[in-house]
Amino acid sequence: MAGTPTFATPPGFLGVQRRDPAGGIAVAGIPLDIGTTNRAGARDAPRAIRAASRMLVDGAHPGSWVDPATLPIADIGDFAIALGDIPASLALIEQQASVIDHLVALGGEHGITLPLLRALRQRVGAPLALVHCDAHVDTWPDNFGQAYAHGSVFWHAIREGLVDPRRTIQIGIRSPVQREVWDWTLAQGVTIVTAQDFFELGPPAVAAKVREVVGAAPAYLSFDIDVLDPAFAPGTGTPEIGGLASWQAQALLRRLDGVDFRGMDVVEVLPAHDVAEITALAAATMAWEYLCR
Amino acid sequence: MAGTPTFATPPGFLGVQRRDPAGGIAVAGIPLDIGTTNRAGARDAPRAIRAASRMLVDGAHPGSWVDPATLPIADIGDFAIALGDIPASLALIEQQASVIDHLVALGGEHGITLPLLRALRQRVGAPLALVHCDAHVDTWPDNFGQAYAHGSVFWHAIREGLVDPRRTIQIGIRSPVQREVWDWTLAQGVTIVTAQDFFELGPPAVAAKVREVVGAAPAYLSFDIDVLDPAFAPGTGTPEIGGLASWQAQALLRRLDGVDFRGMDVVEVLPAHDVAEITALAAATMAWEYLCR
Amino acid sequence: MAGTPTFATPPGFLGVQRRDPAGGIAVAGIPLDIGTTNRAGARDAPRAIRAASRMLVDGAHPGSWVDPATLPIADIGDFAIALGDIPASLALIEQQASVIDHLVALGGEHGITLPLLRALRQRVGAPLALVHCDAHVDTWPDNFGQAYAHGSVFWHAIREGLVDPRRTIQIGIRSPVQREVWDWTLAQGVTIVTAQDFFELGPPAVAAKVREVVGAAPAYLSFDIDVLDPAFAPGTGTPEIGGLASWQAQALLRRLDGVDFRGMDVVEVLPAHDVAEITALAAATMAWEYLCR
Amino acid sequence: MAGTPTFATPPGFLGVQRRDPAGGIAVAGIPLDIGTTNRAGARDAPRAIRAASRMLVDGAHPGSWVDPATLPIADIGDFAIALGDIPASLALIEQQASVIDHLVALGGEHGITLPLLRALRQRVGAPLALVHCDAHVDTWPDNFGQAYAHGSVFWHAIREGLVDPRRTIQIGIRSPVQREVWDWTLAQGVTIVTAQDFFELGPPAVAAKVREVVGAAPAYLSFDIDVLDPAFAPGTGTPEIGGLASWQAQALLRRLDGVDFRGMDVVEVLPAHDVAEITALAAATMAWEYLCR
Amino acid sequence: MAGTPTFATPPGFLGVQRRDPAGGIAVAGIPLDIGTTNRAGARDAPRAIRAASRMLVDGAHPGSWVDPATLPIADIGDFAIALGDIPASLALIEQQASVIDHLVALGGEHGITLPLLRALRQRVGAPLALVHCDAHVDTWPDNFGQAYAHGSVFWHAIREGLVDPRRTIQIGIRSPVQREVWDWTLAQGVTIVTAQDFFELGPPAVAAKVREVVGAAPAYLSFDIDVLDPAFAPGTGTPEIGGLASWQAQALLRRLDGVDFRGMDVVEVLPAHDVAEITALAAATMAWEYLCR
Amino acid sequence: MAGTPTFATPPGFLGVQRRDPAGGIAVAGIPLDIGTTNRAGARDAPRAIRAASRMLVDGAHPGSWVDPATLPIADIGDFAIALGDIPASLALIEQQASVIDHLVALGGEHGITLPLLRALRQRVGAPLALVHCDAHVDTWPDNFGQAYAHGSVFWHAIREGLVDPRRTIQIGIRSPVQREVWDWTLAQGVTIVTAQDFFELGPPAVAAKVREVVGAAPAYLSFDIDVLDPAFAPGTGTPEIGGLASWQAQALLRRLDGVDFRGMDVVEVLPAHDVAEITALAAATMAWEYLCR
Repeated sequence: MAGTPTFATPPGFLGVQRRDPAGGIAVAGIPLDIGTTNRAGARDAPRAIRAASRMLVDGAHPGSWVDPATLPIADIGDFAIALGDIPASLALIEQQASVIDHLVALGGEHGITLPLLRALRQRVGAPLALVHCDAHVDTWPDNFGQAYAHGSVFWHAIREGLVDPRRTIQIGIRSPVQREVWDWTLAQGVTIVTAQDFFELGPPAVAAKVREVVGAAPAYLSFDIDVLDPAFAPGTGTPEIGGLASWQAQALLRRLDGVDFRGMDVVEVLPAHDVAEITALAAATMAWEYLCR
Repeated sequence: MAGTPTFATPPGFLGVQRRDPAGGIAVAGIPLDIGTTNRAGARDAPRAIRAASRMLVDGAHPGSWVDPATLPIADIGDFAIALGDIPASLALIEQQASVIDHLVALGGEHGITLPLLRALRQRVGAPLALVHCDAHVDTWPDNFGQAYAHGSVFWHAIREGLVDPRRTIQIGIRSPVQREVWDWTLAQGVTIVTAQDFFELGPPAVAAKVREVVGAAPAYLSFDIDVLDPAFAPGTGTPEIGGLASWQAQALLRRLDGVDFRGMDVVEVLPAHDVAEITALAAATMAWEYLCR
Repeated sequence: MAGTPTFATPPGFLGVQRRDPAGGIAVAGIPLDIGTTNRAGARDAPRAIRAASRMLVDGAHPGSWVDPATLPIADIGDFAIALGDIPASLALIEQQASVIDHLVALGGEHGITLPLLRALRQRVGAPLALVHCDAHVDTWPDNFGQAYAHGSVFWHAIREGLVDPRRTIQIGIRSPVQREVWDWTLAQGVTIVTAQDFFELGPPAVAAKVREVVGAAPAYLSFDIDVLDPAFAPGTGTPEIGGLASWQAQALLRRLDGVDFRGMDVVEVLPAHDVAEITALAAATMAWEYLCR
Repeated sequence: MAGTPTFATPPGFLGVQRRDPAGGIAVAGIPLDIGTTNRAGARDAPRAIRAASRMLVDGAHPGSWVDPATLPIADIGDFAIALGDIPASLALIEQQASVIDHLVALGGEHGITLPLLRALRQRVGAPLALVHCDAHVDTWPDNFGQAYAHGSVFWHAIREGLVDPRRTIQIGIRSPVQREVWDWTLAQGVTIVTAQDFFELGPPAVAAKVREVVGAAPAYLSFDIDVLDPAFAPGTGTPEIGGLASWQAQALLRRLDGVDFRGMDVVEVLPAHDVAEITALAAATMAWEYLCR
Repeated sequence: MAGTPTFATPPGFLGVQRRDPAGGIAVAGIPLDIGTTNRAGARDAPRAIRAASRMLVDGAHPGSWVDPATLPIADIGDFAIALGDIPASLALIEQQASVIDHLVALGGEHGITLPLLRALRQRVGAPLALVHCDAHVDTWPDNFGQAYAHGSVFWHAIREGLVDPRRTIQIGIRSPVQREVWDWTLAQGVTIVTAQDFFELGPPAVAAKVREVVGAAPAYLSFDIDVLDPAFAPGTGTPEIGGLASWQAQALLRRLDGVDFRGMDVVEVLPAHDVAEITALAAATMAWEYLCR
Repeated sequence: MAGTPTFATPPGFLGVQRRDPAGGIAVAGIPLDIGTTNRAGARDAPRAIRAASRMLVDGAHPGSWVDPATLPIADIGDFAIALGDIPASLALIEQQASVIDHLVALGGEHGITLPLLRALRQRVGAPLALVHCDAHVDTWPDNFGQAYAHGSVFWHAIREGLVDPRRTIQIGIRSPVQREVWDWTLAQGVTIVTAQDFFELGPPAVAAKVREVVGAAPAYLSFDIDVLDPAFAPGTGTPEIGGLASWQAQALLRRLDGVDFRGMDVVEVLPAHDVAEITALAAATMAWEYLCR
């Protein structure tokens, strides 16, 4: 171990002090959280995830042997958002994302994914394949009256042609849901692997299914931390028991070789409900798995 | 999602505002906790479980497709108990339970199960089959001198003929226990599936064994939240590591079709030791699994 | 002590089960919190304050000897709000408040006070006198771009003629503030008693000043829990050290006899950051002081 | 600083390893808590108070210059109690206390004080003077039906002639209370100094009043930790805001020279609701103030 | 259940009050924690682990049927260490360990294992076989400049000939690590079972491998609590997600019959980051599994 | 309010992004904590204090009307320390401090003050006057055998001629202490204002005494957060009840006009024991009071 002791790691994600993303991957926080339907507080997640990432600075990934210190990562800070205003915030996020080649976004709530997909769809020029890890389908047409809150992200994304539902797979789903929302999602062509399915199939089989669904299309990874069981991720806003263990999520991500990912987000971390930083560390680790894959 | 946002759900279990149980299922809290042998505080569980149940209000069960809003559930509030007095409390609980057709009880400590079984045995007219999920056998003849505390519930239940030990199955057992208590329990005919057995067998095989043991007899489900590992249920009084994941408990309960359940309880939640409501949510979810099966 | 043990108090504020406010005082929760500038989560406050109020159910106020059980209080539940939408929420809140004679509002963030004042101003027919306990002046013209967030309530209230600034007193003020915001506030005629002033003067002198400023005008009490020091109210969103002890706030409120209060609110409680319910209990107690004065 | 580092202090109160109380002062834990009316868990207090007392081991009291290491203190462990049984526990406590010369009791709930007073009254041969620090008068004739719970201790103590009400002073009182309970207490001759009185008078004047009320009679100190404000003692079962600062309690105790104390207790610490051990430390410090006075 | 209720268990490990280890197994705390690279606080672990062990006092192990009350265990208290001085502390620990036949050490950080191995190597007269459960290989040649901190224990142990690397197996490994550290470790002959390997193989196969690697050699068990996932052990200093469930660690330990263990330690518990004592209980349980095997 | 919302403040102290201290004041973290005698973890304080300082970014000090955004402050990051090695760390700290004109240091433990005073003494060319706010005198000649731990800072500072004891004042003192340590301190000429003295005198009188003791000499402010009562600063390592309220510390600091301060530190914050960031915020505020005086 060299350099600064872990506890004194500088504040950027993975201790990165580079702020210019040119030619590489940009990590950014997006502290929007006003479209959440249960607990609030995901605005505090970027700071917490960056702090927790200090555990991952020293050494290489013990599977891929990629050392993140060798990667062209810049931490560009947090996106500007419009306080208390969802439409203006979504517009701001899309605008800021539109100038970035490859973005790893640290939410914030899941609502941030919609403008990120809009920007990426524009850049890629075609609907994206989607790997969506979550306890919830997030294809509700509305959220207690609010069209652009965290439960409607993929309803909009599918209807706006941002993602290709036949190349979309949702993993870890388990929340209560109206039958019509479920049926609409399947009818669009989305593949759903429930949490109980996941436990029966195991990570290798699920990974195979992901690769099959996604194919060679440009793809996006949206990782809602509540796909993990609340035991592994207590710090989240809409917890559902019966979720994945963190090793299972890692085992899945490590088997997605060949998927042509163009960006990712990890969302819905709520530090106020976290314990011992375990949720923030899980989120940081998922981004690290993505970066070091 | 329609109606009230999740965070503003009214106070009844699953947001239910009906208080008259006629012709349906009554949910009641039973805030007794003075017969506990380690940590105290299960008296606060009914309030915490009801609050946590807000996560389960909006939509149908994503397996059975039962929507709890369509079920004839009433939340009748909390049972009266006698402060600081176990015998008087047990009598009060039995009396209040005796007028209820089908009760889902939110403990409180495990000691509440004895008067509930007395009342149900009376109503059913025969010893009940029992599905007992717990880290502890709860067949101790006494509890450091106290006959009617939470570790002796099924010693009494068997001796009083409330349950049929040959139609009784205990699942998730793993605490230290005197060999003679263990042997007595087996000698009565009880089937014990330890936590380690559970991990080897898997939920489908355990469910099959439950159905085999219980058969067609009228049955009762007593779910001590400490059957879950403390990672999944930290908020409990007598934790034992090495327990079930919450998905495993769900996978079990979802496979108990055909069992003729006449009532259930979920006990031993201690909100003061909970984090991020995960234990209370686990308890609420177990009751929801029961109701939506 | 009679009736239900404290730990089993029913869910209404002060255990009240009456829901029809006719002819009396209505208590309502208002779970809006999306206009906050630091920590989020005041949406959870109504539930927490109601739960904490169980400490105040049994017996009379040991100063005024008013027993809240004898008062015409109804707990009418939570106001509807528009998820993720400040303007629509303010309109909804005003509309619901407009039909209530005398409202005790449990926030939510401070932004709820603006529509409450709009409704009350309409009902009273004249600008209100205002007793405003807070660490912050809340007379900023905007909040990082958002006009209707929690730091601008009284800027709007003064400009809309809802309150009479010469009959407005702010108590406990201590946060950083732009000199021009401070000067504008004073220039409107507002009286500011900083926290350090309060410690020098003591509660009786501050109370005398309140009575002098307010006079006989119809008055409103807006109690931001962050007027208390974070030691006494850790569960809040924009904490500032150096605040009042809870006994000082009580000593003040108990000396406001003769003030013609027409309504009150207690805002900015964040249960996710609270410990041992002490902030929620402080909020409940302030409302109880108001009701039992 | 000599000997063992603070963090490695052995487990007895103040690190004391002597267990034979002969000729000195016995410290004992009394883990009874089943007569509490709100939160439970005072059973865990003896362990927590002993652990927190490690802060007070190294050096002398910086006022009296008494070094507790020079005092004849023994930590005799915890009293036996009867699990789940108030009458049997009270009998056991009385019996164990009856053979001890001078006892410093670490509760447990306030209900333990009754048998301690019974034993001490017997030993002293006359009613005791009483210094009672508390948020509650504890002279209720019952507790939601239970005669021997923590709110009735001094109702019994006065009626049984254990304490002399005219030599009894209650300090810090502030909870809601029925007018008839209050009036009965005063009618017995008890002096009540409310928390608001205390803040007006200041510690020296209150101490003078204590010395005046108690006089030269053999006296007992019963210190309910909830006399402190929840900011200073969050870990307690029936918190009331508006209480004393811990320095005020110390300033009072340090001025009680001349009072002929024969024993004391510190009760109602609930570690499950404590933060950073501050309540346990406050309790340990009060016992240390008593021992080093 | 007989004797003292669980909550009143005396302070020794497993409630043991014997302090003379002659002829048996000595349990000792070793509160060293200044060589940690991330969070601090393992100094508080001995007290926390002893307290948590109260859950394991009453009854026999429900697999081996060994009752710890029948074992020749003494709790000899905490080892002396030199405050703030690693070399002096290591010397002190070695010296104290050298006079003990069979030691179960409750850390403290992992750095304590080096002097324990030095003492045991001396006593045994040959390099030890090692079963090392951990998220980290702990074979770094240094720790941000410090040679004797918690990440270098086995680098020294191998180089000093304390353990035989060909009879050393590391289980649960998953942290980032420099490729050269990994390769050096393997080059010494160490067997590494990563956490992902463990999940694929399952406990019986891993246990078989342990028995194969260790053979009949005198062996040592070093159990770093961070081998468990942070969900199961949040209270630790260098958490890594993706770890073992506690039942898996138990399933492994229960299958190590035939291994000739001469001592063990459980290290890296940090009570300040624990919740509901679950980490401390996991640590206590691992020592109990070892003792009752 | 302009710029970034509070919750998205960039990571430097007070959101400062300048890192070159030339011509101004340097803020630096010093994450040393291995010389602590009770709880560990002050290494995490620099990150926590910086994060909490976001509350103080927007606006001017409401007393001095200094806006910190107008001050020449740079946040130069954390000092390098030697992991696990006190002497080497002290040397490193002194060396780094020696090139800084005016330093505001965010500890770490109190042990960091010794090398800071060594460097400043060298720069100033004469012994410094000292304003020392603390619960402890920190003039012990050793700390359980360790000469350079946090309780001996001023024993060394006086003996090394770094501070002038006749121009040294200690404020808020209240811990147990050996009589000989106390007497030695007084004999050097140090003025001690105990916490109880402070409460009797009040902030203005204590401030007058400080100005009188310090006079016109170049002075240093060492602010141990444990001078505050644990209610106001639970997150600290060696808490003592009976301490100052945070408003009192502010009232003191605001009256030290004319004192010629050349540097300051705020030490002994332990985030792991903090709640709702209140201790970190108190520490940040004390540095802000110093900067904006």
